[in-house]
Amino acid sequence: MPNLVVVFHSGYGHTQRMAQAVADGAQARLVAIDADGNLPPGGWDHLKAADGIIFGAPTYMGSPSWQFKKFADASSRQWYAQDWKDKVAAGFTNSGGMSGDKFNTLVALFALAMQHSMVWVSQGLMPSNMKASKRDDVNYLVSYAGAMAASPVDTSADAMSPGDLETARLFGVRVRDITQRMKGSAA
Amino acid sequence: MPNLVVVFHSGYGHTQRMAQAVADGAQARLVAIDADGNLPPGGWDHLKAADGIIFGAPTYMGSPSWQFKKFADASSRQWYAQDWKDKVAAGFTNSGGMSGDKFNTLVALFALAMQHSMVWVSQGLMPSNMKASKRDDVNYLVSYAGAMAASPVDTSADAMSPGDLETARLFGVRVRDITQRMKGSAA
Amino acid sequence: MPNLVVVFHSGYGHTQRMAQAVADGAQARLVAIDADGNLPPGGWDHLKAADGIIFGAPTYMGSPSWQFKKFADASSRQWYAQDWKDKVAAGFTNSGGMSGDKFNTLVALFALAMQHSMVWVSQGLMPSNMKASKRDDVNYLVSYAGAMAASPVDTSADAMSPGDLETARLFGVRVRDITQRMKGSAA
Amino acid sequence: MPNLVVVFHSGYGHTQRMAQAVADGAQARLVAIDADGNLPPGGWDHLKAADGIIFGAPTYMGSPSWQFKKFADASSRQWYAQDWKDKVAAGFTNSGGMSGDKFNTLVALFALAMQHSMVWVSQGLMPSNMKASKRDDVNYLVSYAGAMAASPVDTSADAMSPGDLETARLFGVRVRDITQRMKGSAA
Repeated sequence: MPNLVVVFHSGYGHTQRMAQAVADGAQARLVAIDADGNLPPGGWDHLKAADGIIFGAPTYMGSPSWQFKKFADASSRQWYAQDWKDKVAAGFTNSGGMSGDKFNTLVALFALAMQHSMVWVSQGLMPSNMKASKRDDVNYLVSYAGAMAASPVDTSADAMSPGDLETARLFGVRVRDITQRMKGSAA
Repeated sequence: MPNLVVVFHSGYGHTQRMAQAVADGAQARLVAIDADGNLPPGGWDHLKAADGIIFGAPTYMGSPSWQFKKFADASSRQWYAQDWKDKVAAGFTNSGGMSGDKFNTLVALFALAMQHSMVWVSQGLMPSNMKASKRDDVNYLVSYAGAMAASPVDTSADAMSPGDLETARLFGVRVRDITQRMKGSAA
Repeated sequence: MPNLVVVFHSGYGHTQRMAQAVADGAQARLVAIDADGNLPPGGWDHLKAADGIIFGAPTYMGSPSWQFKKFADASSRQWYAQDWKDKVAAGFTNSGGMSGDKFNTLVALFALAMQHSMVWVSQGLMPSNMKASKRDDVNYLVSYAGAMAASPVDTSADAMSPGDLETARLFGVRVRDITQRMKGSAA
Repeated sequence: MPNLVVVFHSGYGHTQRMAQAVADGAQARLVAIDADGNLPPGGWDHLKAADGIIFGAPTYMGSPSWQFKKFADASSRQWYAQDWKDKVAAGFTNSGGMSGDKFNTLVALFALAMQHSMVWVSQGLMPSNMKASKRDDVNYLVSYAGAMAASPVDTSADAMSPGDLETARLFGVRVRDITQRMKGSAA
């Protein structure tokens, strides 16, 4: 079985709920970056041991939250040793509105993964962009580079879109499948 | 009065309708790139004479349509002479779904404008990202780098969101205002 | 053995030479997009049969050439059928100068691959960014998302940097290795 | 005279030296973000009073340093009030190598400025991408979206490229000129 870790920061709980959905699909361990941008004890070890790492952050002012970025900057040590080389990578993000520069956040997570010499997995779901498409359909936000969720800024994590959460879960399943293929062969 | 041009390509009419809305707001001339990626007679002259150029293209496979790109590549002649230096620039795009990599298209238009040494105007509208926000509210797609529209892939241009079109019109007004400020001072 | 295809457009021969170096490393078939943006006979079939596809284009006005984009837009048929789902993807680009918006071209290739539900391979080479680094060192341009080459605009493809070409070749080797891992397990 | 502020973070002094060069050209006030991501006393007031804001950050792991991002996230208060609407914006970055994902950092700064409804100024310098181009020529890195510098990771700020610093100074002059045009007309 592949060893997967979801490492994420959440400011108000929405990205955490999304991370949980991704982790459910991927059967992954959750590693939460705290409000000061630090990992919990053992966090770096879990990342080093993983076959794949899924990065998650809210989109604040057009890119990942500073707490996530502090973690990313701290990973320059792992970068220098290329500890994460050839691991599978993927990313997800939440913000208040539909598009909301979330693509830019996914590209920032992608750029991080590329510096670590990782292999990046796409969302893998067809878009819900027909006249009959509904808000809670899978991939209603129409993202390909990773998973997106949109949660109105005046609602709590409890009120997140079930479709966005199912999208996140299916994304986790997909990352697991791809990681299994990469790992199976390497074994 | 500032002299503004909207230069755009449209595959199925949605981006054309959006271009019309932007041009209405900006009181701009429309210059349509044809199905072979060429400008109409006089097109390049209109662009050279403009105080500001607003670029528009549908998002196909994650970036501007090839017809728009053919125009962009052809503008290397204007680039070499820096004919568009200091002109105001802005961009807009349409695709089938909510996010749909449209941010990437706006960045492509931005990169083009930057090579031409232009000055880029933001969307300038607050987002509609509250629980009570409705599909036809202004800036429901939540874009900042330019104007976005989302039109289901199985509907014609007639059925475009009135909110997206009003967003486009207000964007045109804004580009006009900024261009007036730039031009007024230069005069 | 993995079946790899390098599909590319070249305007003046530099990207073609780079494509050859990537193909040498990957032991891949070359499929050239012509000056009108079309594939040769059998091109689409080779792509469908491939385990991995490496995309290459020159950077013109900040993004891939229109001929490459015409090919990308035409791949919407393959996209609709998700013919390329789970295939390995990677990208490379050449332009006249050092940075020259080449990162933006790689992101455009990445966005294309993501829409096709592919898996993207990083460059995988450490940067040459020390005081003692020389122009012909491997990864002197310091790229991570794909392979880059810089060729002065007044020199022919014959005069390309041997270091950039070796970087391209090593990138091909890496894409082959990752594809082997993906394929081996799937078999 | 336009009131310009350069707000920047520097980890090892290179971005600080670049910021000084930009500020020299723009006759701008320097506001340094500290090692904890905070502004000095009066920093927010200087930004509010400015006609234009030039953002600067090192590129770490493919995007602006976390300290810069902490400042950017904190500016959500100014965003909510749209205090910076219509101000001129621009950006610059330094990293160890030639390309090094610096374009991605400039796009992150651009996305921030767009959310603030600002107007973004291009670099405005032709590229040095000929056979005869030398490392210390102006715009040797070939950037258009903002100013770039490359400083080998094993050298101090004292050893930065004079060409990169002159590029930064000329960029400051340009931002000043554009801001003057915007301000002159508004007066």
